[in-house]
Amino acid sequence: MKIVVDAMGGDNAPLEIVAGAADALALDKDVKVVLVGRESEIRSALGEREYDNKILEIIDACDVISNDESPTMAIKTKRESSLVKSFEKLMQDDECGGFVSAGSTGAVLVGAFMKVGRIKGVSRPALAPVLPTLEGNGVVLCDCGANVDSKPVNLLHYAIMASTYAKAMLGVENPRVGLLNNGVEAHKGNELSRQAYDLLSANDDINFVGNCESRDLLTGNFDVVVSDGFDGNIALKMAEGTASLMLKLIKRGVYSGGLKSKIGALMLKPVFKEVQKTLDYNAQGGACFLGVKKVVVKAHGASSRGAISASILQAKGLALKNICETIADGIVKSNAMSQQNAASSEE
Amino acid sequence: MKIVVDAMGGDNAPLEIVAGAADALALDKDVKVVLVGRESEIRSALGEREYDNKILEIIDACDVISNDESPTMAIKTKRESSLVKSFEKLMQDDECGGFVSAGSTGAVLVGAFMKVGRIKGVSRPALAPVLPTLEGNGVVLCDCGANVDSKPVNLLHYAIMASTYAKAMLGVENPRVGLLNNGVEAHKGNELSRQAYDLLSANDDINFVGNCESRDLLTGNFDVVVSDGFDGNIALKMAEGTASLMLKLIKRGVYSGGLKSKIGALMLKPVFKEVQKTLDYNAQGGACFLGVKKVVVKAHGASSRGAISASILQAKGLALKNICETIADGIVKSNAMSQQNAASSEE
Repeated sequence: MKIVVDAMGGDNAPLEIVAGAADALALDKDVKVVLVGRESEIRSALGEREYDNKILEIIDACDVISNDESPTMAIKTKRESSLVKSFEKLMQDDECGGFVSAGSTGAVLVGAFMKVGRIKGVSRPALAPVLPTLEGNGVVLCDCGANVDSKPVNLLHYAIMASTYAKAMLGVENPRVGLLNNGVEAHKGNELSRQAYDLLSANDDINFVGNCESRDLLTGNFDVVVSDGFDGNIALKMAEGTASLMLKLIKRGVYSGGLKSKIGALMLKPVFKEVQKTLDYNAQGGACFLGVKKVVVKAHGASSRGAISASILQAKGLALKNICETIADGIVKSNAMSQQNAASSEE
Repeated sequence: MKIVVDAMGGDNAPLEIVAGAADALALDKDVKVVLVGRESEIRSALGEREYDNKILEIIDACDVISNDESPTMAIKTKRESSLVKSFEKLMQDDECGGFVSAGSTGAVLVGAFMKVGRIKGVSRPALAPVLPTLEGNGVVLCDCGANVDSKPVNLLHYAIMASTYAKAMLGVENPRVGLLNNGVEAHKGNELSRQAYDLLSANDDINFVGNCESRDLLTGNFDVVVSDGFDGNIALKMAEGTASLMLKLIKRGVYSGGLKSKIGALMLKPVFKEVQKTLDYNAQGGACFLGVKKVVVKAHGASSRGAISASILQAKGLALKNICETIADGIVKSNAMSQQNAASSEE
C-alpha cells in the first residue's frame, strides 16, 4: 500500500516530513511512501538514508502552495506544486491508497475536492479530527471547518461518514452519535439543529443518542459528534484556547509561588507531561477529510516527525479497511431510504 | 438603590440566596434588597438576623418556576411565582434599579423580555457573561445563548450593548470588539459573520478590531466578543468542558502517580486554587441580560452566597451607572445612522 506525502506542506517541511516518512517505513514493512516536493531538498533531508525506489518514490515538484494563498486559485494555477502533483499521483497510481499533508488546510480540502472528487451521493465532504476524551478512545468531531452554513442533510451525511470512520479508527462497534447543540432537550437549538435532530432520529443506520452540549463533548459519552463546520471549528479551537490558558495560568502561579510551588511543579512534571500528551490530539495522526474518493489525512501544520509517521500509518490503515467504499455504501443506502420515504409520504 | 432578588431560584435556594443578600447588605451600606419568595422559608433562612424593612423587604410568593418547565408558559401562568412577582416589583417600584436570579435561565430571559420589556430600538436583548482572560480584566461574550439564528443587525446591537457594558463592568475606555469567527481574515466565516463583519466595520461608535477565533477568546486581546447565541453558547460550554477535563486528568495522574506526585500536588495546592478561582467566572457575579429596560443579572444556577452577593453589588453598580439609558442612547444613534446611510444610498 502506497501513501502519497506532501513533503513541502507544514511549518517543519521538508525536514520533519521526510523524517516522519522514514520513521513510517521503519515501523511498518507493508507501507510504501511517495514523497512529493523539491527533489534536492528531499534528498538532502534524507541524508545518509537510502531506500529502494520500490519502497520510497520521490516525485519532483518545484512549487509550493502557502497558507496565505487563495486555495482555489492556487490549486487551479500552481500545476507544479507539491500538492497538485501529489493529488495527480494519488489518482493515477492504483497502488496509492491515501494521502497525507501538513500544508494549508484550505488548499488540501479544495485540492481533494477538485482532484480526488466527491464520493457519489455525498452532499458535502467534511473534516473530522479525533479529540481526546476523559473515558474511552476519543471522539470524532465532524465537521470542524470544511463547510459553513450546512443543511440538515449534510449533518446526516456527516453522521454516516463519521460513524464509519469511528468504527475504523476507534474500534467501536456501534458508535454513539451526538448532535452538537446548545441544550440537551430534543428540539433545542437553532433551525439547523432542530431539523437535523429529526433527520438523525429517523435514520436506523446510525446510533443517534441525542443532543450534545459542548461541555460534554470530551467526557467520553459520545463516539461521534456532528455539527456545522463553523460550530465545530469554534468548539475545537475553544478547547485549544482553554487548555492553553490553563497551562499558562498554572505556569504563572508556579513562577510567582516561591520555592515550594517550584518543587511541587517539578515533582508533578510527569503528570503534566502525561496530561499534555493526552490533550495533544495531533500526535496520534491527522484529521480525515471524509467523503472524497481516496483517504486524505490533514496533519496539523506544526506536525513533528512523530505526527507525520502516525498520519501515514493512519492513512494506510484506513485505506486497507476500505473506508471510502464503506462510506459510499452507507450514503447510497441512506439516500435510497430518504427517496423512499419522500415517495411514500407523497402517496 | 434597591435590588430585587429571586430568593427561590437556583440549586442552593433559598439558603445561599438569602445569605448572599445578607452579605451584600453588610458589604455595602447603600444597597437595599427585596427578597421575593416563600416568606416563611426566607425568614427561617435569615435566622437570627434582623433588618429594618427599609433595608430588607420581603415579598411573599408561594410558587416557584423550575428548570423543567416551558419558560413562556410558566411566566404566563404562574402569577404567584417568585420570578413573576420579582419582575412586577422591579417595574412598579421606581427605587428598584436591578434584579438578580439564579433560577432557570430560560424563564429569567423570557420573563425579563415580557415583564421588563425591550429598550426601544434594540432588535434582540442578549445574555453577556464576563469570561476570565490571561491578561487584563476579562472579556464580555455576547450573546451566549439568548438568541439563535441571529441576523447581522442583531450582532451590531450586541456590539453596542456589550461595549457599554464592558466600559461599566471592566472599566475599559474604548473596548476592543471582536467577531467570533472560524478564521481571522476579513470575510472568513459563514453568511452571518461575513455580513456582520461589514456592519461592524462601518460603525464608528464601536472599536471593532476584527475577527476572533475561539482559541483567542481568552487571551485578553479582546474586551468584547460578539456572536450568535448558539455559537457563543458552544464556546462558553466548551471552555467549561475543557477546563473540567484538564482538572480531572491532572487529578487522575496524581492519584496513579505514587507518593511523589501526591506530595507535589499538595505543594501546588495554592496554585491550583488560584487557577480555579480565576477560571470560575461565576464567582465575580452573573451574566447581564443586555437590552431590557432595567438591569437583569442571571447568576449561575449553582451560585453560592458569595456569587449572589457579588451579583447584587454588580446589579447595583450597573444601575447607578445608568447602563440601560446609555445602551438606549447608543442604539438610537446607531439606528439613526443606518437609516441615514440607507437613505443616502437610495438617492
